[in-house]
Amino acid sequence: MRGMNVEKIAVVGASGYSGEELIRLLLRHPAAELVAVTSRQWVGQTLDTVYPKFAGMRYAKLAFIESEISAIVHSGARVVFLALPHGVATEYARPLVAAGLKVIDLSADFRIKDPAVYEEFYGEAPNAPELAASSVYGMPEIYRDKIAAAQLVASPGCYPTSIILPLYPLLKKKLLKPETIVVSSVSGVSGAGRTAKVDYLYVECNESVRSYSVPKHRHLGEIEQELSAAYGEKVMINFTPHLMPVNRGIHSTIYASRADGVTPAEINSALEAQYGTEPFVRLLGEKGSPDTKNVTFTNFVDIGWRHDPRTGRVVLLSAEDNLVKGASGQAIQSLNIMCGLPETTGLL
Amino acid sequence: MRGMNVEKIAVVGASGYSGEELIRLLLRHPAAELVAVTSRQWVGQTLDTVYPKFAGMRYAKLAFIESEISAIVHSGARVVFLALPHGVATEYARPLVAAGLKVIDLSADFRIKDPAVYEEFYGEAPNAPELAASSVYGMPEIYRDKIAAAQLVASPGCYPTSIILPLYPLLKKKLLKPETIVVSSVSGVSGAGRTAKVDYLYVECNESVRSYSVPKHRHLGEIEQELSAAYGEKVMINFTPHLMPVNRGIHSTIYASRADGVTPAEINSALEAQYGTEPFVRLLGEKGSPDTKNVTFTNFVDIGWRHDPRTGRVVLLSAEDNLVKGASGQAIQSLNIMCGLPETTGLL
Amino acid sequence: MRGMNVEKIAVVGASGYSGEELIRLLLRHPAAELVAVTSRQWVGQTLDTVYPKFAGMRYAKLAFIESEISAIVHSGARVVFLALPHGVATEYARPLVAAGLKVIDLSADFRIKDPAVYEEFYGEAPNAPELAASSVYGMPEIYRDKIAAAQLVASPGCYPTSIILPLYPLLKKKLLKPETIVVSSVSGVSGAGRTAKVDYLYVECNESVRSYSVPKHRHLGEIEQELSAAYGEKVMINFTPHLMPVNRGIHSTIYASRADGVTPAEINSALEAQYGTEPFVRLLGEKGSPDTKNVTFTNFVDIGWRHDPRTGRVVLLSAEDNLVKGASGQAIQSLNIMCGLPETTGLL
Amino acid sequence: MRGMNVEKIAVVGASGYSGEELIRLLLRHPAAELVAVTSRQWVGQTLDTVYPKFAGMRYAKLAFIESEISAIVHSGARVVFLALPHGVATEYARPLVAAGLKVIDLSADFRIKDPAVYEEFYGEAPNAPELAASSVYGMPEIYRDKIAAAQLVASPGCYPTSIILPLYPLLKKKLLKPETIVVSSVSGVSGAGRTAKVDYLYVECNESVRSYSVPKHRHLGEIEQELSAAYGEKVMINFTPHLMPVNRGIHSTIYASRADGVTPAEINSALEAQYGTEPFVRLLGEKGSPDTKNVTFTNFVDIGWRHDPRTGRVVLLSAEDNLVKGASGQAIQSLNIMCGLPETTGLL
Repeated sequence: MRGMNVEKIAVVGASGYSGEELIRLLLRHPAAELVAVTSRQWVGQTLDTVYPKFAGMRYAKLAFIESEISAIVHSGARVVFLALPHGVATEYARPLVAAGLKVIDLSADFRIKDPAVYEEFYGEAPNAPELAASSVYGMPEIYRDKIAAAQLVASPGCYPTSIILPLYPLLKKKLLKPETIVVSSVSGVSGAGRTAKVDYLYVECNESVRSYSVPKHRHLGEIEQELSAAYGEKVMINFTPHLMPVNRGIHSTIYASRADGVTPAEINSALEAQYGTEPFVRLLGEKGSPDTKNVTFTNFVDIGWRHDPRTGRVVLLSAEDNLVKGASGQAIQSLNIMCGLPETTGLL
Repeated sequence: MRGMNVEKIAVVGASGYSGEELIRLLLRHPAAELVAVTSRQWVGQTLDTVYPKFAGMRYAKLAFIESEISAIVHSGARVVFLALPHGVATEYARPLVAAGLKVIDLSADFRIKDPAVYEEFYGEAPNAPELAASSVYGMPEIYRDKIAAAQLVASPGCYPTSIILPLYPLLKKKLLKPETIVVSSVSGVSGAGRTAKVDYLYVECNESVRSYSVPKHRHLGEIEQELSAAYGEKVMINFTPHLMPVNRGIHSTIYASRADGVTPAEINSALEAQYGTEPFVRLLGEKGSPDTKNVTFTNFVDIGWRHDPRTGRVVLLSAEDNLVKGASGQAIQSLNIMCGLPETTGLL
Repeated sequence: MRGMNVEKIAVVGASGYSGEELIRLLLRHPAAELVAVTSRQWVGQTLDTVYPKFAGMRYAKLAFIESEISAIVHSGARVVFLALPHGVATEYARPLVAAGLKVIDLSADFRIKDPAVYEEFYGEAPNAPELAASSVYGMPEIYRDKIAAAQLVASPGCYPTSIILPLYPLLKKKLLKPETIVVSSVSGVSGAGRTAKVDYLYVECNESVRSYSVPKHRHLGEIEQELSAAYGEKVMINFTPHLMPVNRGIHSTIYASRADGVTPAEINSALEAQYGTEPFVRLLGEKGSPDTKNVTFTNFVDIGWRHDPRTGRVVLLSAEDNLVKGASGQAIQSLNIMCGLPETTGLL
Repeated sequence: MRGMNVEKIAVVGASGYSGEELIRLLLRHPAAELVAVTSRQWVGQTLDTVYPKFAGMRYAKLAFIESEISAIVHSGARVVFLALPHGVATEYARPLVAAGLKVIDLSADFRIKDPAVYEEFYGEAPNAPELAASSVYGMPEIYRDKIAAAQLVASPGCYPTSIILPLYPLLKKKLLKPETIVVSSVSGVSGAGRTAKVDYLYVECNESVRSYSVPKHRHLGEIEQELSAAYGEKVMINFTPHLMPVNRGIHSTIYASRADGVTPAEINSALEAQYGTEPFVRLLGEKGSPDTKNVTFTNFVDIGWRHDPRTGRVVLLSAEDNLVKGASGQAIQSLNIMCGLPETTGLL
């Protein structure tokens, strides 16, 4: 792309769905030069052998290398994406950060600032609280300036993105009563990862809807962290995730009572003020209904809302692709910001 | 079936999914003799011509007759199911009831007792408020005795069944704060009916989840009617239905704050006391998660629940087949009760 | 059921989809008394713990016992279903047969009469060629009398059922040129079994169609065995199975050239003569198109056909539920025949 | 894009799935300037009102204009895509061609060169045989040079693309016996168009597979036309399309006997010689299995093949996205060729 700097990029751990999606997006990104993909199980194999869908595209013949720090540094990468299982990112992030590289982590390892909260939700102490402390939560619509200056970005979880974005401006302006917040979300099965478990077999998920991790899903930690930051006080909510038979997509339905004296018009104004010019947030207003099929394979999050005069509640509705805005697309949005590229590069 | 009375049955209007399901269930019902199926568009055609899936089964060669009162009465039917679009049932129910037949209506026409509520949710005055007043809401777990004595049963809607059943015993015992109730439900596409609309085409529903009729779906009228009856005071809630890509199944997730001083054990006791011996309500307790795939093609409703000590809320989870327990199966449950048959006849 | 003998039944190995389906069908079978279910992994657990969908039904509280011969014999079972992985059935069938029990095996172990054919398709010598020799291929429409007298029935595979039935009468009467036969089949994912493999995860199967095991799927052995038996000479065909995103259902499309001088009317006559009175074969003629949704959850196989005057070929179309007529339903059909019950008992 | 000419484009009739897909692809095409979209039903509405998924993208605020020749010409468009129902394209193509514009038609109106063949398959005489005669069949891998010089391109049908491409080089070199060709294809439901018919409702297509238009689907006309052209003699085949529950994707399985003396190696060589350097044909060889999920949302067609020594047949396997390589992507490939752009522009 004319006049655009090209950034050398490495992807560490590309066997899961978000790693694969990261590669899919980077193959189309005009300012990304993919210099290394790493994987223990696939060393020496080319990208198109492992992922036949990438055959015939640029970098299709790039071969996986060992997931070793020296190899990654040696690749010349300036920015490294970590698409690793929960708990493994630290061993890569620490030396890569020390080596001066920029790191964007897609796991939960660095998202939670308070070690006690991490321990509450993950059942163990965080591996690297100092990295969590110095990292930036990679939600551009809220932390754009910090991301621009960050060396380590903790890219948000899929559910949190769909929940924090609609609530953020309303809590920040104290338009809602935070203790009344209740969230029901449904997610496509790719959110469960590419793991060979009977629970996620086709036959077990097709023609099925079920909740899981009620009432304390791990993502609740980062959701409440960000809602509390917005509101200025500790916020605790109910959040119920459900699995539904689609490949991609999260739909969140959020209920909260308006704070005393708040009008519906103020709700709308706050959303418009916050997101009116955001490239990836589409406000559907009081009539539109977000539909996951309108956002899958895109980096958009669609937000609609309703006011119920009978109960005084606001109902916020949001939809996103859990693998794009909920994971890899948002991570690339951070990449663009960190590298001084137009934020939408490779994402529209 | 040995010693069981055989009842002569007619089905009026069998072109929709609940009418078809009614026939599917009646074909297997050992005490049901199907003497008439009516349809304006299919007069003279046999059941297996219209529904190839019923070929080779008993009654497959029964021919549709005109939807005329005299023909229905002449068929010898003692019980008539009305599976008609909203607003049409009155013209059949009134003369059939007058003729002394028992009538089980699957539409919304007679479910709402208060004409003002009907008008609020359906946008017009009810056709037959006197029939609504004299009918019984066909939810056997709550109105079994009244159903046994009823001549006209208004069989409940699909969403209401999945929502009223979990909440009923908890509201009746005032274990919850009714003003805190919020419900998110997801339904399979058969709930939208067999109507040729672009919105319900395969491609528009597959890989899609979206809410609709927020915040005032028509079923809210009967939901609140029954919750209010249970609680003894007017109850108003938020209810958000969503469409998801499965053929059958409704999953409801219900949030409410416990009333002051109520313990989680009391929640469980109330559910057990109400439903412990019910043949079609399966209590999964505090660990089980209802999954629509466990109830589809059955008349069961599965109910689980959680207590969240962090927020004081109870989360109730329920799953049913919208066409069976949510429509035609429940209607046959009423049939069994009205005719003095074992309640599970043809349904297990 | 009045005057019907009740048969004591055991099911060995019920962790796969066909074992589960067998139980689902037996729970509704009026002449089946389930006296034992065995499983190594689930010993001591009740049926409804392992399969929540069976809660509330009869036998729901039956506990799994060890998969041991003595325990099975001791249960009093007169008929034993083996729903075991390929290669394991012999160790049960041999002693159970020796103990005088009737055995219906759902695996491939005894289907192939010729050990050389078995070895060609399964890559190893058969474990029990003498049992294969003495068993009856459990396709009632062809071997009804032999099944009635059999002690060991080798119940057919899913693809073979959908392919052999349409071709059998046409080859028997030499109406087709066997060397021109080509078959394309598509199967639902339950055909791959309840196995935790990445290939069968929801996301890998949804929005996907792919062929597999081309050109020599294992089922080809039994398909050709039966087609050869029908024709009286060795028949070799091409068969391509495909995986498609449905839970249940197989659709087979079969092409063959008419033998010289054969008229389309003769094709139809042969199908009618063979299947006109069969309870589970529905002939749709030259206009009907089998649709898997009309046969799922039933024991029917639907067969349609076309004649193409341009090319002289006949196109046969068939649809069945791979778990019912293609596996467990057909096995119960054999049970009924072996026990002198009406053949449709528990299957309509 | 640097140094790339920007072409002014109009899309006539954008209410169907291929019209929508055309717009989706053009919005990302770096050398396409969308100057007009026309639609009778949506005049005055913006693209993002009709298609919320396009909100926030370039041209989202472009308003639909009347489908009138003068308006299209006046828009400045140099190339016009016609995405109209069968039979309507002529009234636009004739005056637009006369006005000197380049036209790419996605309907079947100009694909069939022989009016008698058109009449045989479409049941009526062609509207504009002279345009059919002067148009080029828009399959770049076969007619690239002619497309470059064409003013009117008849873009191929979805099934034909998946069938002609694998067979073309093998027939051209007479490696197969054409009278033995049999094709079974399965297509996603978007192939049926965005038409409000009960047959294509979600519930009617989900958990269903069925054949249709057997044995003479309309696409057979253009398939045989191109196969005959390749072989040099009239070729007649059997072709059976099936509908399966996915949104996008066609998989074709093609059977044919090798010509006498032809070796499997020659089959492979012919495919490699024809397609080895094609940007959108990916050869998977004798081991790979095309899977629609690897090609959906791309312009690739994947081709694998097998040799069956038992029967002497070759089995060709192909997969494509029916809306991209099977329709709009291929049409844009023609656009690129006609305008002297790199052929992959906007398609990788």
